[in-house]
Order: sequence, then structure tokens, then C-alpha cells
Amino acid sequence: MRKGGNKMSNLDCIFRPRSIAVIGASSRRQTIGREILHNMIDYEFNGKIFPVNPRAGVIHSIKAYSTVLDVPDAVDLAIVAVPKEHVPLVAEQCGEKGVKGMVVISAGFKEVGGKGVELEKRLVKIIKKYGIRLVGPNCFGVVNTEPDVRLNATFGKARPKPGNISFISQSGALGEAIFNFAELLNLGFSMFASIGNRADISANDLLEYWAEDELTRIILMYIENFGNPTNFTQIARKLTRTKPIVAVKSGRTSQGARAASSHTGALAGADVGVDALFSQCGVMRTTSIEELYDVAMMLSNQPVPKGNRVAIVTNAGGPGILATDALIGHGLKLPPLSAKIKNDLKAFLPPEVSLNNPLDLVAGARGREFTLALDAVGKDKAYDTIVPIFVQPITVNELDVAQSIIDAKAKTDKPFLVSFMGVGFRSEGIEKLSQNGIPVYIFPEAIAKALKTVDGYRQYLQRKKGKFPTFKVDQQAVKNIIEKSRQAGHEAIISEDALDILKAYGIPAAEYAFAESAKEAIAVANEVGYPVVMKLNTPRILHKTEAKAVRVDIRSDKELRSHFNDLKKQIGPTPKGEKFSVAIQKMVSGGIETVIGMNYDPAFGPLIMLGLGGIYVEVMKDVAFRITPLSDERADEMIRSLKSFPLLSGFRGADAVDLNVLKEALLRLSQLISDFDEFSEIDLNPFIVSGDKRECKAVDARFILK
Amino acid sequence: MRKGGNKMSNLDCIFRPRSIAVIGASSRRQTIGREILHNMIDYEFNGKIFPVNPRAGVIHSIKAYSTVLDVPDAVDLAIVAVPKEHVPLVAEQCGEKGVKGMVVISAGFKEVGGKGVELEKRLVKIIKKYGIRLVGPNCFGVVNTEPDVRLNATFGKARPKPGNISFISQSGALGEAIFNFAELLNLGFSMFASIGNRADISANDLLEYWAEDELTRIILMYIENFGNPTNFTQIARKLTRTKPIVAVKSGRTSQGARAASSHTGALAGADVGVDALFSQCGVMRTTSIEELYDVAMMLSNQPVPKGNRVAIVTNAGGPGILATDALIGHGLKLPPLSAKIKNDLKAFLPPEVSLNNPLDLVAGARGREFTLALDAVGKDKAYDTIVPIFVQPITVNELDVAQSIIDAKAKTDKPFLVSFMGVGFRSEGIEKLSQNGIPVYIFPEAIAKALKTVDGYRQYLQRKKGKFPTFKVDQQAVKNIIEKSRQAGHEAIISEDALDILKAYGIPAAEYAFAESAKEAIAVANEVGYPVVMKLNTPRILHKTEAKAVRVDIRSDKELRSHFNDLKKQIGPTPKGEKFSVAIQKMVSGGIETVIGMNYDPAFGPLIMLGLGGIYVEVMKDVAFRITPLSDERADEMIRSLKSFPLLSGFRGADAVDLNVLKEALLRLSQLISDFDEFSEIDLNPFIVSGDKRECKAVDARFILK
Repeated sequence: MRKGGNKMSNLDCIFRPRSIAVIGASSRRQTIGREILHNMIDYEFNGKIFPVNPRAGVIHSIKAYSTVLDVPDAVDLAIVAVPKEHVPLVAEQCGEKGVKGMVVISAGFKEVGGKGVELEKRLVKIIKKYGIRLVGPNCFGVVNTEPDVRLNATFGKARPKPGNISFISQSGALGEAIFNFAELLNLGFSMFASIGNRADISANDLLEYWAEDELTRIILMYIENFGNPTNFTQIARKLTRTKPIVAVKSGRTSQGARAASSHTGALAGADVGVDALFSQCGVMRTTSIEELYDVAMMLSNQPVPKGNRVAIVTNAGGPGILATDALIGHGLKLPPLSAKIKNDLKAFLPPEVSLNNPLDLVAGARGREFTLALDAVGKDKAYDTIVPIFVQPITVNELDVAQSIIDAKAKTDKPFLVSFMGVGFRSEGIEKLSQNGIPVYIFPEAIAKALKTVDGYRQYLQRKKGKFPTFKVDQQAVKNIIEKSRQAGHEAIISEDALDILKAYGIPAAEYAFAESAKEAIAVANEVGYPVVMKLNTPRILHKTEAKAVRVDIRSDKELRSHFNDLKKQIGPTPKGEKFSVAIQKMVSGGIETVIGMNYDPAFGPLIMLGLGGIYVEVMKDVAFRITPLSDERADEMIRSLKSFPLLSGFRGADAVDLNVLKEALLRLSQLISDFDEFSEIDLNPFIVSGDKRECKAVDARFILK
Repeated sequence: MRKGGNKMSNLDCIFRPRSIAVIGASSRRQTIGREILHNMIDYEFNGKIFPVNPRAGVIHSIKAYSTVLDVPDAVDLAIVAVPKEHVPLVAEQCGEKGVKGMVVISAGFKEVGGKGVELEKRLVKIIKKYGIRLVGPNCFGVVNTEPDVRLNATFGKARPKPGNISFISQSGALGEAIFNFAELLNLGFSMFASIGNRADISANDLLEYWAEDELTRIILMYIENFGNPTNFTQIARKLTRTKPIVAVKSGRTSQGARAASSHTGALAGADVGVDALFSQCGVMRTTSIEELYDVAMMLSNQPVPKGNRVAIVTNAGGPGILATDALIGHGLKLPPLSAKIKNDLKAFLPPEVSLNNPLDLVAGARGREFTLALDAVGKDKAYDTIVPIFVQPITVNELDVAQSIIDAKAKTDKPFLVSFMGVGFRSEGIEKLSQNGIPVYIFPEAIAKALKTVDGYRQYLQRKKGKFPTFKVDQQAVKNIIEKSRQAGHEAIISEDALDILKAYGIPAAEYAFAESAKEAIAVANEVGYPVVMKLNTPRILHKTEAKAVRVDIRSDKELRSHFNDLKKQIGPTPKGEKFSVAIQKMVSGGIETVIGMNYDPAFGPLIMLGLGGIYVEVMKDVAFRITPLSDERADEMIRSLKSFPLLSGFRGADAVDLNVLKEALLRLSQLISDFDEFSEIDLNPFIVSGDKRECKAVDARFILK
């Protein structure tokens, strides 16, 4: 019996029913109704099954009823596979009958648009009226392999093996592939749900249900979009502390480029929010079902490794090199063998063994040699994960080697990831290993990729929980600026106003002064001191650099006058109601340009962005996005995640910049975003950072209003 | 019968023998000698087999002989699996017997070092004496599936299926995996050779042999290092015009960081040479055996697609999205359906079909719907490759869909890449498709990756053949500079001398003038005109930027004096025999910094490098390496391959730089490298490029002498 009590009870009607009506059951071959009934009987459901079909009679040797209302006993769950137009009637009957849960397989609802949307609304109305919980419509069904239940209400050909993986699929079509591929890999399930259109029960509901389920150790997901990302974040953040979640989120590239009026907006593709969300709640993301299972195999019976250091023990050189390439390529470490291990092993292994990592035992190695080597690296603190690779030579019994791997694994709590090459997906050795909970892969590349994914999860788990600091700020000042802009009918807040918003939130920003003539400009420049920057002051031109309306590093009155006149000439006549003027700023010399920004994502809310100035961001796309609010730890990790981070930390003898200023700017911006939901996009571009705190500041900023 | 005549004859003794001695044949189970004999008999070798074993008698129902000399008939080929110490004697006996070819399976030669190296030398001496051709030692054997030959001289369990793939493996241990995995994928072989230590027959020999082999359509390679990269380049460049070569080159990460005295040297890892070599001769590179086969499947019965535009036809939404993600992620295109196709199909497909690319026929689609859709995209010129995806619903017969795919394929010469999900590696439908030469994958991700690899090959094939221009240069001037440096005992040529080398080869370089006092410096600056750059002039400090010994953008006498004094103070007392002096250059304003360089690779010879200035190269590692000599087309392609290329071609309204100057600089450097093999590393850093040809020049350069 599963524990969980009340917390679980809401979905027990779906996954732990005592009696089920299969509505739309049929004897006709190649129909969904027949397959579901057949699968349920074949899987030996531990309860009563009542086929329901207008023609009644007997289906699959079981007495059938015309409607669910005719069923003599109570019915907990209805599996519905009738033509879509009959679904509302069936739902009404279920309600009258007191059915607690429904799984609607039938398709033709919201997913087809138009009338389907209406039909789904009708269905939802009915189930809400009766308090029925609903999976689907447009789904592949549900599974619970628990011995007391044994529910296989799907129409696939596979017979799911019991295990500790629970799986949520938003695609019904993938259902069959999910079970078949799992079978090929010898993986077992605890529960499965194809959630279809999620008219009632969502992925979030299942996560909460499975959080309490003892038999579920790892949760896999295939999703195409998020229903409620905020809820997902909260649920997943808690859940991943104890149960790993691995997800394929598809549709990475389906959203085309969209119009954006800021750099941040242009860079925030369809996918950065998903990545940010997953990484911020410890969900491992893979790009394919194959990789999903590679990770699941690793974690379904083993702990997360304590670090990223791997020992390879192989009987074949080539595969050892392939494994090394793949592991190093994915950022994992292969520390060399210690002198002690080398010494210990030397006495017992043949002289041609190469005592390195990978430890190549050469083709003749049998169980004994594997045992010696695996025990040695298994107990050495220098390694976190052990990768035994075995290519079967004709002269060696694979079962002996499998046994030596099992024995070695029993002596340590380090995860083992085994590659058995050249025997296909199944062999006696593989069978034996997987029966003992040790994951076996064909090729070492799959191991490396899975380990990389899990290593990201390890880092997440080991990271300190962040704090959300609150800074003293001037909210009223920001309110006033927004109001002023709205009243003026502006869509964007730029120049001085934008910098004033930053200042109100304690984010350092450059000072401006305006000048309408060369003479005024020279006066200002002499006041702030050369060198200065001169910018055209007009809301008409958003991208001033492209328009060559920014002149930098002006060092003398002469240079300034020449630039002023040149700019004026270049810009041409000013439109009516506007006067030609420039902004003069003291030039920030030295330092490194960063771009900080925010983009409001319709699904994930405001995303904060950080990148290195201009070209790094735009050509190299070296940016980090995070979901708000941002914790101090996360801000720190965000900065360090940039590929160009070395430039900030003192590259080639340069001074390191003051990372605390950058971090605080991110946190203060996060607070601003939490306080004001008026902005759709924000750019602080550039935000200069340097080793001198006083020199760190936003030089320009732009707030796009929603 | 294979064609080829004399050209093939040298390796015919290995692959087309009429009589074979299996030396070291044995009846004992689990011995290599038994397995080889067994495999040869089981594979029905079309010739005579003579087991050879000191105990003679009968082995596997065949009369055995004590030595090869006792065999009554002539022997073409000897397969040798005796203890290593007996191999030289066996070779002598083979020589006396007049044996033409040997495959030495026995291990314990060069690969174990020490005495093994000596043993291999002895073996080679013997075979050279007798003119015997040798595969191995330390190998897995050879295969030729040709019906007239039927040779399986390996000790694996697999029974290689005939087909048109020929395979070279440098790893014996991978042999078993190679055949087993191929069997799983239904792939067939023409020939196979495990080349082991390559004491005689190399991968290059096999490539030349297979170039002439009619039954070999595609060549796969697993190699760990190159014997003769120059030969390989010449052979492969020719061969890939007609037969695709796909290779896994392992050891990508095995070479640790090495000391380097130039940027180019530091960036030239173990692997850039391999990538450059492969890409310059059209060899497709994959990182795993799995991917190798994914490409082989695609090309073994189909042409290379004409472009990168893909149409997806699916009966399942989720997999369609996964395929889209993967294809777009790998740089392939999914053009939308034309209005015409939409119109044509609308009338015949159910209304819920989404008429996009991917074309989702929804779950009910049968053969008929697939035929309609596949025919439509098959004949549309907007698509180069067709990807049908099928997830089997219980209500649809997979054989019908398979047939419709076969029919559609017959009407077009576009390659088809099919994903059959949810049925494992084998099903009736998959069987039917692969029997008809259509590749089937489980997951669409594998299709996308294979197609990306093949698309690189397509681009190679479609690229114009380059020319190797010869420029008029002053060789003698360079000779003199090298001689002078050698005589002075310098390891590097820097400053003025380095720039003079460039000038002698027509590569534009900045002018220098030296000054020992501030006064002199000011005089120089006024001559060349401000702004100027001032650099410390000493061979002691190679990395002047880190040492803060470079001062840029000096605009006045006052600034120059201040920098001069500051630099002098910073550097401190000059060592005896050296005088403090600075180099003054006119500052190149505007333009973009690039780095051009050369690194001499022990395996591949001189590699030319190009990257964008400083930080792009060093932090972002955005560099391109190519093997020399460089053709004009290749130089062009090299420039365009940079991720940061948009910066050169006019980014955000900036002027495009003069790409011809950059191209010519690369070609002139290539000529310099061909003319002089005295350099181990070269840096032109920075080489400034801009829209104004006159402003393009190397500002600093460094030549490290071998």
C-alpha cells in the first residue's frame, strides 16, 4: 500500500480505483476501445472492470452495459473512448453515477480549435459540476504498476514493467514510444499519465501527487508548453530536493523571431525562459527521449554522484579513448590514478596494463582483474563515479565480468555507469547488471551526456540556498517618472528619466547635462572634465550608435566643437517642436561594458538578462537569462555562467572588476521589477563595471512600457 | 567479380585469396584460433582452408598441418593467431611457402612498447624480405562479403551481412561492436579491416584499394591517429568526390595543454588539425560509432541531398515538434508549404490536418494520406530531403504506411530519412523499408544530426575548387632576416624584423620608428602625426599588453611625454647591454582587429589560423584553422566560418571591411609558410582590417623559430 493519506486522495480516483467502467469498450479489432479493455484485463487489474457499450452484450468475456448508469456496482473511474460528440453525455452519466475520475481518450477537442474548444468547455463544466477529476481529453491513458492496483488503461501494445519511474507526457503519440523504448532498456515504471489537453489534471497536479508517492523515485516529463509556470517552479523546486525530475520540453525553435524594441527583447528567444526556469528549480533538461532515459537509468537506482570526477576501467583501448573524449568534452574530470593505486595494482595485473585513467586492463581481463581495478577506484576518494567499459572478447565470460561489477558496486555508494559494447541492447551480462540496478549503456557517449546532465543537478543540489535581499529604494520617484511618461504618451522612458529610475533604486548611473550649442557643450565639458561623451538628445532615434549619434572620448574644446558641428550637420534639420540638443557625459574610461536587461515573457514573467557589452551580446549571443526574483546566490551564479566571465575576473593581467557592484545591480533591478509590472523590456546598456567601485555605472538605459 | 585490374592486385592477396592457412587454428573452445576457423567455415569461404597447428590432426573436421610448409597446396593468405613470440618463425615459414598476404591477429607488439617494438621490427623485416603484405599485428581480422569470396577472418560472434559499406578500424576491440551494432541497424558490409598496429598495410592503402572497388559505396573509419596525413589528404580529397567517407577520430582530448609561445600555438589544440584536415578533404566527422552509422544508413543507398531544406510529414504532433527542434537546432531549414500544396492537399485530407511544415496528418493517417502528402512534398522543388515520421496507432497498419513511403520514394531522387517511433529497432514496417534501401531511425534527433553532418559534405561538394595563387615576393629578404636572427641566437623574430618579413611577402604592415628619449619620441610622433601608439622595445617581454608596455591613442606631445616617463618608471632599470627605447607607430584608428597566425602541428604540418582580435580569440575561442597550402576559395570560406564574421561584413550599420585584403593576407602568409619551414609559430596580432584598404595592416608580428 502506498502511503500519503489525504494529500494523495484527490488523484487516487484516477490511479487507485477499485472499479472501472470502460466506456466505448468494443470487441472489434484495431479499435482503441478493444485495446484498452484488453490491456486492462491482460495487466490483471486488481479490481472490477465494467465494459460499457450501447450494444451491451459481452465484450472480452465480460458482461457489458449500455450506459455507465446501468452498471450495478459503484464505479470509481471511467475510461472514455467514444466519439467526441458523445463525451458530454457520457460525462453527465458519469456524474449521475457518482464516478470520481475520468480518463478521456477521445480526441477532437481544444487541440483542433473551433468547435473543439467549445466541446471541451462543455466537458469541463460538467465535470466541475459533479466534482469529477479528469485526465485528458485527447490522451493515451494512465498506468499504475503498483502491485495492489495493476492499472494499464492505455491502448498501446507495450506491457509496462513495474519500476520507480513516473512519467508525464503531454503528447499522446509519444506514449507508445515511451513504453517501447523503456522496455528495450529494461526500465520500469511506477505511474504514467498522458495528460493530453490538460482540461483538468495538469502536470503540476501529478508532480504534487507523486511527491508523496513512495514508489516513485524519479519523474520524467515530456511537455510542449507550461500551464502555470509559477506553480511549476514552486512545486518542482521542492520536489527536486528529494526526487530528480528530468524533462524534455519541445518547441525550442517553433516560435519565430518577434519584434522587440530592446536588445534584451531581441535576445530572449522562445527557449531562454524554459532553460532559466528549469535550471532555477533543479529540473534536468534533455533534448530527446533517448537522453531522458539515459539519465533515468542512471538515477533510478543510484544516488547523485558527489562530484564530477570519473574513473574509467576498460578492457579495450579504443572505447576507453572514446569515453575519455566524450567525458572531457562534457566538462567532466578524469583525475589520474594515485601512486598508491598504481602500486597496489601493479603487483596483481599483467605488465601490459596501462596504469592510467582510463585504466586499460587489455582484452584478456576477466572478472578478477575487473574486481581488483574497480575495488581500487571504488574506494579512492579521488573519484565520484565509476565507468566500467567491457567489450566482450571471445575468451572472456561476460557473466564473470558482470558479477565483478556488481560486487564492486556493492562495496561503494558511488554510481556506476557501465558500457557493454558489441552485444546489442540485450545480453546475459546486461540482463544480470540491470537486474542488480546497475545501468548499462551501449556506447560511452551516452554515459558522458547523461553524466553531464546529472552533474548540473548535483551542482544545483550542492549550491547554497540564496537570499532575497531587500534594498532601501525610492519607489515614489519611479512612480512619478512612469506617470509623467504615460501622460506624455511615451512608449519608452529613455535618457535622463531612465537613469533617474535606476538612481531611485540605488543602481549607479552616469550624470547627464544638456547643451543646445557648441558653447554650452564646451562649458558643460569643462565642468565635468574631459574626456567626455556627446550624444544626440532626441526620443526619435532609439539606436543611437547605428545612427552615429554618439561621439566618444572627446578630449578638448576643439574636438568637442568639431564633433558638435559635425553631428548637427549629419542630423539635418530638427522637426518642429524639437530643438537640436546634445547630452554631455563624463567619459567612463577603462572598465568593461556589460548589458543588463529585462524581458517580460508571456509564460514566465520577467526574465533578467546579463551579457558582456555590445558585440558579445549581439554576435556571440553570450548572455544569461534568469527568472525573477533573483536571489543573491543566483545572481552570482548568473555572472559566472557567462562564457566571457574571464574578462570580468581579471583577464591577461587586467584588474578584476568589482563583481559585488554587478551583483547588487542585478538584485536591485530584480527588486525594481518586482515592485513595478509596468515594464515589458528594460536595457541598461552599457552598464560599465571596473575594479573601482566609483567607476561602475549605467551609462544609458531604456524602459519600454507595457 | 570485382573490377579494378592491376590497381587492386596488391591487396587482393588479403581480400581475395583462393586458399588460406589458419595458423594457430584450434579445437579448444573460447580460443581465437577456433573462432576464426569456425567463422571462416560458417561463412562458407569460397576457397580452400588449411588449419595449421603444431599438433596437426583434424580441426573442425578439416585435416590440419603442423606448419604452413606442410600444406600440400599453394597458400595465398595466412591468418595468424599464435603466441607473439612464434610470429617471426611463422612469418619466415610463410615466406618460404610463398604466401602472399598475412593477417596477424596476435597482440603484444608495438602497442605494448619495449620488447614488443623490437618484435614488430623483426616481423616487418621478414615480410619485406619476402614481399608479403601484412594486416596487423594486434588486430581483429578482415572481412570481404563479395559472393565470390565470402571471407570472414575475424574472431567475433557476428556474421557480417553483405552490403556496400567498407570499414577501417584502428581498434580491434571495437570490431565486435562494429558488427553487432550494424546488425541491429540492418546495415551490410562490403569489406572490413581491423588494421591494428599498421606495420604494413595502412588506412591509406585500404582507401586506395576501395576507391577502385565497385561494391564499396561508402567508407567508414575509426582511427586514433594518422600515419601519413599528407597522403591521406591527397587520397581522401579524390575519393570523397565519388564515395563518402565518414570517420570517428578519437583522442580528441587526450593531448593535454602544451607550452606555446604564441596565441596561435596556445589555441591549436590536439584536435584542430584533424578538423581542418577532414573538412579540407570532404571527410565527414562524427563523434561516435552510433552517429557514424546514422550517416552511413542515410548515404549507403541514397544520394547526397541537393540542399538543406527539409519537409517533415508526420502522423504525430509531439515527434514532429521534436524533429523540428532538432533540425532547426542543427542549422537545417523547414520552408513552409506552398499555397499550391496546401490547396491540393486540403481537398483530400481530413480538416483537422495542420497544413504546415511539419505536415501533421494526425493519428488516423493511413497509407493513403501519407502517399498524398509525401508525393506532394516529394515533387516540390522547395525541399531537398523528406522526413516521414510514423508513430504506430493501434488502428493503422504499419506495412501500409511503409509501402506508401516506398512508393513515394520511388517517384523522386530526394533522400528519405524515416523515423518509426515506438516499435523498437525492428518491426515489419522497418524491415520492409530497409529492404527497400530506405533508412529508418527510431528518434528524429538522430536524423537531424546525420543530416547536419551530410549537409557539411554537400557544401563541400558544391564548393568551387580553389586556386592557389602565387604572388611576387622577396624571398631573399626573409632569408636574410632569419639568418640574422639565428646568428644572434634569437628564438623569435619580433618587432621591426617581423614586420619586415611581412612586407617582403606583400602583407601590409605598420611602420615603426624607435626613440630612446621622450624628445626623440615626440619628434617621431610629430613626423608620423598623432594619434600614435608607443610600445616598449625589448625582446625580453613577449606579451607586452599584459605587461602594460603598450600605450595607445596618444594625441599630444604632453600625453606622449607623460606616457614615456611613466613607462620608463614602470619598467625599472634596463639590463646591461640593453638601452631603454620605445617604438612609435601611427595609431590605426577604426578598423577591426583580427589575429592571423600559424602553428606547426607535428602530425599535420603548418596550420593557418584566423580569429577576431584579442578577446574573441582568447576567451570566446572563435577561431578557424586550416591546413596549408590555402586555396583562395578556402581562405574565403575560412573568413566566413567565424562566428564573429558579422563584425567584418558590416554589423549594425558599420562599414564592411575589405575582405579581399584579409583573404590576400592569408594567401600570402600561406605562400610564406610554403617557402620557409623555419617557423614553428607565427602571430600577426593584431592585423587590422577596415573598409579602407590603406588602413589594413599588421600592427605587430612575431615569428617563433623551430
